Amino acid sequence: MSRLWSDHVVGLTPYLPGEQVKLDNMLKLNTNEHPNGPSPRAIEAIRQAANDDLRLYPPVNSLALRQAIATWLKVEADQVFLGNGSDEILAHVFSALFLRSGRPLLMPDITYSFYTTYSTYYGVPTECIPLASDFSIRVSDYTAQREVPPAGIIFANPNAPTGRALTIVDIEAILQANPDTVVVVDEAYVDFGAQSAVKLVNQYDNLLVIQTFSKSRALAGLRVGFAVAQTGLLEALARVKDSFNSYPMDSLALAGAVASVQDHDYFEQQCQIVINAREQLAKDLIELGFEVLPSKTNFLMVSHANHSASELQQALRVQGILVRHFKQSRIDNYLRITVGSPAQCQRLCDSLKVILGRA
Amino acid sequence: MSRLWSDHVVGLTPYLPGEQVKLDNMLKLNTNEHPNGPSPRAIEAIRQAANDDLRLYPPVNSLALRQAIATWLKVEADQVFLGNGSDEILAHVFSALFLRSGRPLLMPDITYSFYTTYSTYYGVPTECIPLASDFSIRVSDYTAQREVPPAGIIFANPNAPTGRALTIVDIEAILQANPDTVVVVDEAYVDFGAQSAVKLVNQYDNLLVIQTFSKSRALAGLRVGFAVAQTGLLEALARVKDSFNSYPMDSLALAGAVASVQDHDYFEQQCQIVINAREQLAKDLIELGFEVLPSKTNFLMVSHANHSASELQQALRVQGILVRHFKQSRIDNYLRITVGSPAQCQRLCDSLKVILGRA
Repeated sequence: MSRLWSDHVVGLTPYLPGEQVKLDNMLKLNTNEHPNGPSPRAIEAIRQAANDDLRLYPPVNSLALRQAIATWLKVEADQVFLGNGSDEILAHVFSALFLRSGRPLLMPDITYSFYTTYSTYYGVPTECIPLASDFSIRVSDYTAQREVPPAGIIFANPNAPTGRALTIVDIEAILQANPDTVVVVDEAYVDFGAQSAVKLVNQYDNLLVIQTFSKSRALAGLRVGFAVAQTGLLEALARVKDSFNSYPMDSLALAGAVASVQDHDYFEQQCQIVINAREQLAKDLIELGFEVLPSKTNFLMVSHANHSASELQQALRVQGILVRHFKQSRIDNYLRITVGSPAQCQRLCDSLKVILGRA
Repeated sequence: MSRLWSDHVVGLTPYLPGEQVKLDNMLKLNTNEHPNGPSPRAIEAIRQAANDDLRLYPPVNSLALRQAIATWLKVEADQVFLGNGSDEILAHVFSALFLRSGRPLLMPDITYSFYTTYSTYYGVPTECIPLASDFSIRVSDYTAQREVPPAGIIFANPNAPTGRALTIVDIEAILQANPDTVVVVDEAYVDFGAQSAVKLVNQYDNLLVIQTFSKSRALAGLRVGFAVAQTGLLEALARVKDSFNSYPMDSLALAGAVASVQDHDYFEQQCQIVINAREQLAKDLIELGFEVLPSKTNFLMVSHANHSASELQQALRVQGILVRHFKQSRIDNYLRITVGSPAQCQRLCDSLKVILGRA
């Protein structure tokens, strides 16, 4: 059938997201969704926006949401770029900012695996730099002078699926050492306790920070992500976006996201709930003999000395609990487990006790 | 600032959608939106879906909507591919199907102007074939044997912004003459009286038909489009889509679209309302001295012998009515006017009478 395909399609290796199953009593701890729902104000705003005005195209510039985010983050509205989930923004970033005269893109060997998919799809020459043995990003790997300065540097902070975070001092060192390199910090999980680089945006014209509504705002079903940068970088993204899809954000997502951003109290309360549950779960898993990487996210990366990760994943699945296992070297004996509600974490630990023969 | 941009970004010429303004008493006849709202069942389904489950990612395969569309169009669910508006699908089509060993893409010189934006963005070599002097697509231009068979042929049917439609016999002739060429028929406006090529999909593995919920289903605010083809073509689209964004459809859009598709009576009634209004408006505009191209869409392409299109557009704007004017040769003396409700059409005609000195 490929006689009718574009030449490059045969070589594509698409990103594989975690399973989305909907079964009674199945506990999904495999895609880092929030255990609780979004702000009730967001739900109410969506219901209000479900009316005959859906016949109209959304506002092209989505100013209301950009303004709400800008107010929250203390930047200007024209420093905010929106996308259909942060994945769409990441895709545009690879196209708009990383295709520069064959210069390489640097990224950790273990990070959000969609980055290598984008590199292949857009033809970005990419160099993967191994994380340190404790799975931290070694800042010096990204500050060393190179003969050809990289076109870009990209990593998640906190990193995924390790959960480990760099400090803002580390990130500033990378920015300073690479003035002609676009540094993209993917902060999908930042609200669970890491330091955001947004406050560096006005000082560094080579910095682009990406966040999402899918994790800390419990709106994965809405598909909303955003980038913050100086307007020069965002203009490149806008040109690519407007060569691709004029209206990637629907009217309901825009309405729900605005209300979510404006509900500060709910947001902070919900982040804290997850942080508390994470700290408790980490203790409980260590108690069960797991090694637990230090996490600033809503998931834990864990490994057990006596049981292989794939064996544990299968055994949990039998008990109706989904967790994520990456068949990638160095982390193939780790499980990435989403932090659920306290009750869900308890169910996980109870199941693990049975599996580990400690019940 | 472009020191930090990808090399190709400087040369991009983004698509420019029609203005989206929201002013009191402004009559928007410039972006071909439906004058009435969507199915009340769609609105209700969205309100129902606005709940705590928004914390979850949407189903990756969107089976419920694909099945609903498949049932409606009498194809299989795996012959339906979904996108964030038909624009997103079109973008993926250019990447997935038209980049074949430098072979050209053929399209009419006057058609949906986003196609040339995609060609530039993805680097698809493109040959624009002039429409006949009556603005119809000359089928023989696309059936003639060429030394290098084209990679693709794309046109809107009915065509935009002309409004003229090819018959299914014409389309079949193009398919038969081009067995190694992907023929993409963009049916954004087909429900307003043209013949759909969907019924040819099972006979021709080189046919891809694209439709949208933005026009006849009055859901432009929801961003839902779909393609119908044999699975071989759709697999190429899926590989590209999964290299770009795993979840382009949000949970609310999926819910609303399913309910819209299932409300057959409302859909057919609303299409007929627009068709009736179009025929009346065409008569009224001819009465006012306009040349009106025959339309199978929810818009009319019109020209006046004594008044330039740009002058008329400006004069209508002063009266609070937006219509679309394309500064493109051959059609720069035409206006594209969306068919509104009977009352809106009346307001348009009343304003034109004043402008033309016939009041």
